[in-house]
Amino acid sequence: MRIVTVGREFGSGGREVGKRLADELGFHYYDKEIITEIAKRTQLDENYVETKLEKGLDSNFHITYSHTFMYPYSPMQNDIKILISERQIIKELAAAGRDFVIVGRNADILLAEYKPFNIFVYADSDSKVARCRARADASEKLSDRELKKQIRKIDSNRAKHRELLTNSKWGSKEAYHLCVNTTNITIKDIIPVIGAYASTWFEKHGL
Amino acid sequence: MRIVTVGREFGSGGREVGKRLADELGFHYYDKEIITEIAKRTQLDENYVETKLEKGLDSNFHITYSHTFMYPYSPMQNDIKILISERQIIKELAAAGRDFVIVGRNADILLAEYKPFNIFVYADSDSKVARCRARADASEKLSDRELKKQIRKIDSNRAKHRELLTNSKWGSKEAYHLCVNTTNITIKDIIPVIGAYASTWFEKHGL
Repeated sequence: MRIVTVGREFGSGGREVGKRLADELGFHYYDKEIITEIAKRTQLDENYVETKLEKGLDSNFHITYSHTFMYPYSPMQNDIKILISERQIIKELAAAGRDFVIVGRNADILLAEYKPFNIFVYADSDSKVARCRARADASEKLSDRELKKQIRKIDSNRAKHRELLTNSKWGSKEAYHLCVNTTNITIKDIIPVIGAYASTWFEKHGL
Repeated sequence: MRIVTVGREFGSGGREVGKRLADELGFHYYDKEIITEIAKRTQLDENYVETKLEKGLDSNFHITYSHTFMYPYSPMQNDIKILISERQIIKELAAAGRDFVIVGRNADILLAEYKPFNIFVYADSDSKVARCRARADASEKLSDRELKKQIRKIDSNRAKHRELLTNSKWGSKEAYHLCVNTTNITIKDIIPVIGAYASTWFEKHGL
């Protein structure tokens, strides 16, 4: 079984990389169905789960995580239920044995035993703002400065959640096989090459 | 004109990446001739220049750099002559207008105006030790621990020299278009794909 994980900075186009790469390689792309299954198991609203996981859980989550076991009805309870459920589902998907691409969710750590090919996608700040603007609906009225602040906040939350699982720093290149800078790049242009890189890697590692 | 720069951790195989990539792309590879030219201009021994630049200049260089202008006959004088000469030669080579690949030498910074494609090559510590052992002559009698220490020292020197030129941190992925982890990789296997990535990048940027 071959697994590609895509870590990414918010706004760098990592999700697009993941989707297109799955098409390129003929792999399954797990995304929406994870959200649906989490919602089902936690009995939380699907949009709530999606927003929570996309925007990052509460930034105090890390600090309050350990407290929660002492105060089991803290407001963080939902966040923890979501993460535990997400972890369980990702493990089950991998056990099902299909080749797949998965974006975010610390899947590189959770699935390390399967020797996934791990990509990290990043970009400079202006480029991330431009990508966020291109995909946001017209109601988004944030200034560039506010948007940059939001991007930093989301990435900071992601980094904190990673710390729950591992000592390896989120976005630190050592944890990945390939790091791709999408500044001034049209993502579909680079997909065939990234796909070829992943294929070479799997082949040479006997996967 | 198209330029590929290859930054690398010591022992990660960056020079091999550079040489093979030049072959793959049909670009010129500038390396030994830079050393020869520096030796000629500075009237220093070629082996001395090569060792200095390969192993990193003195780690106190950074601190003493500014003092040197007050005490022009300090022992750092040679190091500074080498660096100034190297910089000048790299600029002249670029001005000559051939497509080329260059490894190290902070060429990504020095040649930024030419919009080079910037790669960084890295690997985990054990992998770097194994690569150093594979290429060292039989007289190398360092323990793994000593070798790791030497690798860290050389990389630390490289990082310091980079600070002379730029605020961007050596090895920090933001400064590069593609970062390639060579742990458990046979370099020649990945060259066609990296070459294709570079070609796509040049084409899409009108180079």
